Amino acid sequence: MMKADPTGIHSPSKERLRLWLRILKTSRGIEAQLRGRFRDEFNSTLPRFDVLAALSRHHDGLKMSQLSGVLRVSNGNVTGIVDRLVDEGLVIRIAVEGDRRASLVRLTQKGKTEFAAQAAAHEGWINQLLETLDENAAVAMGAQLDQLLSSMEATND
Amino acid sequence: MMKADPTGIHSPSKERLRLWLRILKTSRGIEAQLRGRFRDEFNSTLPRFDVLAALSRHHDGLKMSQLSGVLRVSNGNVTGIVDRLVDEGLVIRIAVEGDRRASLVRLTQKGKTEFAAQAAAHEGWINQLLETLDENAAVAMGAQLDQLLSSMEATND
Repeated sequence: MMKADPTGIHSPSKERLRLWLRILKTSRGIEAQLRGRFRDEFNSTLPRFDVLAALSRHHDGLKMSQLSGVLRVSNGNVTGIVDRLVDEGLVIRIAVEGDRRASLVRLTQKGKTEFAAQAAAHEGWINQLLETLDENAAVAMGAQLDQLLSSMEATND
Repeated sequence: MMKADPTGIHSPSKERLRLWLRILKTSRGIEAQLRGRFRDEFNSTLPRFDVLAALSRHHDGLKMSQLSGVLRVSNGNVTGIVDRLVDEGLVIRIAVEGDRRASLVRLTQKGKTEFAAQAAAHEGWINQLLETLDENAAVAMGAQLDQLLSSMEATND
């Protein structure tokens, strides 16, 4: 029936366009909320949280280039972020045989504790922001987005 | 049954967290695709498209401050974007009674034609990127995100 809509306002491509604008608005809205909460509650930022999260998954540490890949921002930014995390005692740099570029970054015990607190708060904020979606709805939408992401990756190959 | 999961890997908050990471990945992935296509096919950028789109909805023109609001970037960036669009003949600045800050920006005929081409291409790219979702699925997901956005706005009030 929608396909017979003579106005063209409802068509698969118009609905997908509308959906995309909503995905974008949702994503930006949630990011803005998280940015405000990290600032207010942890005097921190999303990129700093992303760096701590990446390090929490790699107990042996990560190279600066790997952290840069995680953030998909310039190496310069990662350097600034890591410098400040070092100053605050949350991470340490471990030299690798005199090759400064190869130095590894690792969480300190203080960093692990701080990240655990931030991760728990982050999960709680998301749980609250997405509370209109019950568990089944979240799983179902996640599966649809997974399919979409797989098809996008296949196209890029 | 999921609530009885003793590992805690499946819980409403874990599933919402997973969903959020997928929304973010989808949004960033699609934005990256669009960025590449605007560059390759129109030698243009997403913020430029956003400016043209805003102007296409306001035939009488917009003030720089209004365009800045659309983009949510610094006024400086909008100025640079508009300067280049003026150079290319896609928009014009219309002075308002000697108040330079109040000048309006409007699409030229060339700008209208160019935006129509870009908007059609943009809709086609989105239609292709989201093709794993049929029309009904797109409408359903859009409605869920609308509900989520409404609840977020209500929380902010």
